[in-house]
Amino acid sequence: MTTVTVLGLGPMGHALATAFAAADHPTTVWNRTPGKENGLTATVATTAADAITASPLVIVCVRDYAVAQSILDADALKGRTLVNLSGGSPRQARAMAHWATEHGIDYLDGVVMATTDAIGGPDAALFFSGPADVYEKHRSTLAALGRNTRYVGDSPGQAAAFDASLQDMLWTSMSGVVHMFALAKAENIEAADIAGHAKALLGFFPDMIDLLAGQIDSDRYPGDHGDLDSTAATMDHILDAIRAQDLDNGVLSSARAEVQRALDAGHGKDGFGRLAAL
Amino acid sequence: MTTVTVLGLGPMGHALATAFAAADHPTTVWNRTPGKENGLTATVATTAADAITASPLVIVCVRDYAVAQSILDADALKGRTLVNLSGGSPRQARAMAHWATEHGIDYLDGVVMATTDAIGGPDAALFFSGPADVYEKHRSTLAALGRNTRYVGDSPGQAAAFDASLQDMLWTSMSGVVHMFALAKAENIEAADIAGHAKALLGFFPDMIDLLAGQIDSDRYPGDHGDLDSTAATMDHILDAIRAQDLDNGVLSSARAEVQRALDAGHGKDGFGRLAAL
Repeated sequence: MTTVTVLGLGPMGHALATAFAAADHPTTVWNRTPGKENGLTATVATTAADAITASPLVIVCVRDYAVAQSILDADALKGRTLVNLSGGSPRQARAMAHWATEHGIDYLDGVVMATTDAIGGPDAALFFSGPADVYEKHRSTLAALGRNTRYVGDSPGQAAAFDASLQDMLWTSMSGVVHMFALAKAENIEAADIAGHAKALLGFFPDMIDLLAGQIDSDRYPGDHGDLDSTAATMDHILDAIRAQDLDNGVLSSARAEVQRALDAGHGKDGFGRLAAL
Repeated sequence: MTTVTVLGLGPMGHALATAFAAADHPTTVWNRTPGKENGLTATVATTAADAITASPLVIVCVRDYAVAQSILDADALKGRTLVNLSGGSPRQARAMAHWATEHGIDYLDGVVMATTDAIGGPDAALFFSGPADVYEKHRSTLAALGRNTRYVGDSPGQAAAFDASLQDMLWTSMSGVVHMFALAKAENIEAADIAGHAKALLGFFPDMIDLLAGQIDSDRYPGDHGDLDSTAATMDHILDAIRAQDLDNGVLSSARAEVQRALDAGHGKDGFGRLAAL
């Protein structure tokens, strides 16, 4: 089995090291502050350079790219493969890939679309981008992290681009869910009471996502399932309700402003997907 | 069967009249501009007052409350039941209930949570609020509109409050979905390619909604499934990706500002549900 090093033992790094060890990969770990290796079947290195030289495959999973950069030893990494699973943007991923290439380091940028408790299991989705041959070389080892790993292309920012796009939807939607609860509460509706209706409404989202995807890929936005004129009117009703309760209306006001841009450009009879093409 | 009048024959009003007629309720219709009654089994009235006096139960479904108010004849409505299914806010619903009471009109405020093609079917959800005895009197007739009708209380704004809360979630989430597609497209990811991952991610939403509902109803927001500090960091990565592509960042920036308010109030280690209690 391939020897693996994991740099960073926050909750996610700890879960990654656990998954590698569980798949019988001899694992070396290091963390900036010691004492985070509890429960791990792994060799604990004293320095980052020691940890890096212990394995041909080095995973870094820390808070962000700036922290990753600060602990990565280019000389130690030379000739090895670095897989960065820290959180960041496509721009940061491209910059780190550039740095790695300059220093003779094989580089894969990856993202984890899973909670720590899902790592290693069937639901854990991980995306990787970078040179195809580098991914192929480590594919079976990386598969220990989740049964839903996917290579999304040789452009180093691609995994982070998938991640940013999906997280954009996720956190905007989460914001909508929490704001729904806040408005309901202000109107004396219990969260448990509206939750069931919210789940029923979300049941229509998969079909709606496919419908929008088809519109966007074909660049055609028919408004026959509701047009932007009616969406604007609905949003105004919601904003009236939000303002009447003195709640923060920033998120929906911004969404309404995007709709207005489409109306101003003459797209009032188009469907909502038009907003992706403004 | 009860005789029913429907005022307003836009797509939704047309669907409502179709559903009443299909359930064998003799139906009278009226629209401000004539010629919208195509395909309806209904009596077409010449004036709104004629349409109103034809039935004990009058449904109005027009663009908004201002339009509804402009066509409603208080003298003709006196002693009858008016059910308003026009789009509006809780504040507007309360104002119209007040007007109706002053004029001796029984009033129910309702909302339709369904597309026109679902009206009359098992998926059509309708909410009604107003005096319980008025709802009971017309319950079986209104049931023709959908098999998922629900009475949410005697406060006249309550149906609109359910609607505004759910629509708040719906359109904020829709905004997130379309923005995901826009960001993906800018990063050369096809909509069809990211759609599957988006649907998989939404699969976690029902459990998440129940989790948040429990937190909000108990006013306790443990951060053990991810805290606001990490949400802020993730949002910053997404914003960096959005800005790098020169896309509109208004919606997520507003969501990030709400998170910042929670951080500034010392809630960084709390979960996302805390935002509903700011």
